[in-house]
Amino acid sequence: MSRRANVIGLGLIGGSVAKALRARGWHVSGDDAVPGRAEQAVALAVADAAGLDPAAELSVVATPVGAAADAVRRALATTSGVVTDVGSTKAALVEAVGAQARYVGGHPMAGSELDGLDGADAELFSGAVWVLTPTEATADTTFSTVAAIVSDLGAEVVALPPDRHDALVAVVSHVPHLTAATLMLLAEERAVEHASLLRLAAGGFRDMTRIASGHPRIWLDICADNRAAILDGLDGLIAGLAAVRRIVAEGDRSGLEARLLRARHARANLPSRLARTEDLAEVRIPIPDRPGAAAEVFTLASELGVNIADFEVTHSAEGERGVLYLVVEAPATDLFRGGLIARGFRPGVRRLD
Amino acid sequence: MSRRANVIGLGLIGGSVAKALRARGWHVSGDDAVPGRAEQAVALAVADAAGLDPAAELSVVATPVGAAADAVRRALATTSGVVTDVGSTKAALVEAVGAQARYVGGHPMAGSELDGLDGADAELFSGAVWVLTPTEATADTTFSTVAAIVSDLGAEVVALPPDRHDALVAVVSHVPHLTAATLMLLAEERAVEHASLLRLAAGGFRDMTRIASGHPRIWLDICADNRAAILDGLDGLIAGLAAVRRIVAEGDRSGLEARLLRARHARANLPSRLARTEDLAEVRIPIPDRPGAAAEVFTLASELGVNIADFEVTHSAEGERGVLYLVVEAPATDLFRGGLIARGFRPGVRRLD
Repeated sequence: MSRRANVIGLGLIGGSVAKALRARGWHVSGDDAVPGRAEQAVALAVADAAGLDPAAELSVVATPVGAAADAVRRALATTSGVVTDVGSTKAALVEAVGAQARYVGGHPMAGSELDGLDGADAELFSGAVWVLTPTEATADTTFSTVAAIVSDLGAEVVALPPDRHDALVAVVSHVPHLTAATLMLLAEERAVEHASLLRLAAGGFRDMTRIASGHPRIWLDICADNRAAILDGLDGLIAGLAAVRRIVAEGDRSGLEARLLRARHARANLPSRLARTEDLAEVRIPIPDRPGAAAEVFTLASELGVNIADFEVTHSAEGERGVLYLVVEAPATDLFRGGLIARGFRPGVRRLD
Repeated sequence: MSRRANVIGLGLIGGSVAKALRARGWHVSGDDAVPGRAEQAVALAVADAAGLDPAAELSVVATPVGAAADAVRRALATTSGVVTDVGSTKAALVEAVGAQARYVGGHPMAGSELDGLDGADAELFSGAVWVLTPTEATADTTFSTVAAIVSDLGAEVVALPPDRHDALVAVVSHVPHLTAATLMLLAEERAVEHASLLRLAAGGFRDMTRIASGHPRIWLDICADNRAAILDGLDGLIAGLAAVRRIVAEGDRSGLEARLLRARHARANLPSRLARTEDLAEVRIPIPDRPGAAAEVFTLASELGVNIADFEVTHSAEGERGVLYLVVEAPATDLFRGGLIARGFRPGVRRLD
């Protein structure tokens, strides 16, 4: 018997989720507001069936953010399974959905300038970070079920409160996107006078403006939903550029060098995909009998910067309570253990060799 | 008999030039201010010999920009061949070198975050634009010799006056570099509060900050040499970001959409490497008996945005005067022909099928 899922919204991300689930043996029903799109997905072997499957244990909403709250509610009403979404902003959507034990917001940090079903790729999420945004209303089983599936698709789960997610992606995604577009427009304006300007655009410029080649559609919603955090990020960037301008204008060589060295160091230390083979520890955490405990453990790990290499939830025969096994980098174990104990958990640690 | 060249300054670019020349049968002598570096280059098969070869017909100066004027003068004094350099800024250097018939400034628009001889790559310039910055003092034979060699290394020649070059690379290279560093620092500052921020940095952010991982050294010289153009570019970018900020703050959806669509269109139309097989025309231009005529033809092509797919200079038996054959995209032929006639050239055009 295949596990059954719905994917609602069959664009690049929805199509990729559907393909990734099918590649792992799931039976996937696809649904889309555009007439004929679900049937097209079946024809392209992206989905097994068109329409909503009431027996689905998982429904993934991958519509544009503006339509996501309705789609989540519909999935909750149609099925008795868990529901998640993949929208780029979370606070407004999670609030619109309301307190729902069977829903957890999500955001896979993967994608491309391509959009549409044609670009769908079962391996899109391999190695990507996939944020989940549980609230107090999210049931432990909802969180751990979705986290386990997402992890099985090859992604790393990072748990964050919805508003925290929005503030962070403003800095690493939304502001960079607007900056790429602005750089591209600056070059285009200057190119009116100097036809050869754009011919000098080499690898660095192409790298920096690549994300500006995506379709603007989703960015209109993102800029509306996440306005405050984006404005805050833009202010920070403009202030930073004004500081650089001052340093260049004054010919402050050592000031410039210090900034560039700091940036270089920070770039070199961007977290990369965890090396799974060396120096790991297993943390065993009995899940206490209170809602949201599993999500709280993941959120704490995110706050402390502790990478979770792998995890498993085992449930006792009697019912809902269970044990969470996390594999983390050994050097971070003490930090993590301290945080867990402070939050009332009773972790046990075992070094893996 | 091999053609003989000097490469002075054996970092990433110098090493790559040396390897590329050797791969095409040249005998390359390598020189470097760091003791033992030239010998190391010989040991690594980057150069054939250490030291300056007085018989070299070409000397390529690839030192840091600050040391380039002296190195150019030394190469001019040691050899009777042509001399060029690969510095990232041109106006200050070309002025420092002074009026020299055997020198033409250059700047290959290629490189990587890597530096040092270890990253040297004979194919680094394949498909790259290589700017040459002739002046009135540059002899026709100097320009056409260097242009032909650079072209043989797989690069596309774009000729520009030195100050024009500096203004354009400020927009497509220097300002983007400073922006990448500033974005990286913004994210790093915000990550102090939120340890998980940098884990959310996905492909777009990584693309945008990649160039910030290079060594700051050359950027200190670039920001000093090209201060005015960089300040102008930074002002343009800051003004553009302030405009975006206003649009986001006001929730001006259509204004935002218009900007993003324009940026997308411009990004999609970035010139790519010329397709060499289709719809080309050959333009035959007798080089008149005045200095700088060949360089003037290339500079005009750059100003008009006409891509030169291939070219050859033939010299008559009697001496210096010759004929320049250029292969250009057929649709641009009329524009180019008009400009050439206006400048006193007598072009003939033949469609290639």
